[in-house]
Amino acid sequence: MQYSSQHLEGLIRELGRLPGVGAKTAQRLAFHLLAIPEPEALALAHAIEQVRTRVGTCAECGNVAETQPCCICADPKRDRSLLCIVEQPSDVVLLERTGHFPGLYHVLRGALAPTEGVGPEQLRFAELRQRVGSGAFREVIVATNPTAPGEATAHAVAELLRPLDVRVTRIARGVPVGSELEFADQVTLVRALDGRKEL
Amino acid sequence: MQYSSQHLEGLIRELGRLPGVGAKTAQRLAFHLLAIPEPEALALAHAIEQVRTRVGTCAECGNVAETQPCCICADPKRDRSLLCIVEQPSDVVLLERTGHFPGLYHVLRGALAPTEGVGPEQLRFAELRQRVGSGAFREVIVATNPTAPGEATAHAVAELLRPLDVRVTRIARGVPVGSELEFADQVTLVRALDGRKEL
Repeated sequence: MQYSSQHLEGLIRELGRLPGVGAKTAQRLAFHLLAIPEPEALALAHAIEQVRTRVGTCAECGNVAETQPCCICADPKRDRSLLCIVEQPSDVVLLERTGHFPGLYHVLRGALAPTEGVGPEQLRFAELRQRVGSGAFREVIVATNPTAPGEATAHAVAELLRPLDVRVTRIARGVPVGSELEFADQVTLVRALDGRKEL
Repeated sequence: MQYSSQHLEGLIRELGRLPGVGAKTAQRLAFHLLAIPEPEALALAHAIEQVRTRVGTCAECGNVAETQPCCICADPKRDRSLLCIVEQPSDVVLLERTGHFPGLYHVLRGALAPTEGVGPEQLRFAELRQRVGSGAFREVIVATNPTAPGEATAHAVAELLRPLDVRVTRIARGVPVGSELEFADQVTLVRALDGRKEL
């Protein structure tokens, strides 16, 4: 035994499974959790348990939810004719923070990755088809990541919705605000040129 | 509510209290704990609870312990005439990993910091005085950190043990192995010169 406690060793092992947490960080966090007042450490354990027992998935949009439907789907103030498609629940948080999107969301819960066995069946494509098929939306904004899997997913979504009478748009790709052209890659620059607008 | 779940928000808040975990990392870890299989997430919660309910402090050495005394103090193969003084339980782990120290430990549980209200009474000085006073040790190695608080603590330990018939030594301070002189600060270089040995 490397540590004088198997429980401490167990905690270090579990912490080391978290993304971005290496062996040294795991050890530091474990000793921290051992040193702080007991209620503070147990509050973290309790929070993990609560999240796993109380938080589910909204059957309508696929976002994390404590109620059915989730608080965004249930909000009467949202524009129900506008739908934004994202990959993950964390993307909803990012867009909500902007305060600039008044509509509803559809969380695919991933992006297409055929080599890893992630096809349309593994994502919430069927639910999307059915939802948009109801004819409630005037526009669907595809906000999947501007990465290879995200772009492939965006194209698959466009194909899926093509038979339906709905406008499907893609968020703009271009040079990020506050950055300099020098730091933009070539594909981004091409996108920025293609997507240019009148001044 | 920034997230569509107050439990998720609570977990992000608790994770954000960990050292070195900022708002973005806390969110990423929370969504990770929500996405992985439930048993994996609950294993972390359980590990935290186990550590806080099963792990205590060895009454003899002050190290983390599941038994009284701890497994190092109870080990009949350890050299009971040699004592190494460290600040924290994590320092015991570091020294044990070297496999180069056969004796027992004394964990002070901190270093002197008068401005923060940490005096000898807040550390395991009295236990150290009593332990060494029993006359069992031929040498006490002070392995507190080579920082200002660590050095002050080392001097206070030397003063405390001066009346007793025991050899008190300090771990060598010098240039770290594998590093270059260029990167050593002046105090370290002076220590390295002072502590020179015959080749």
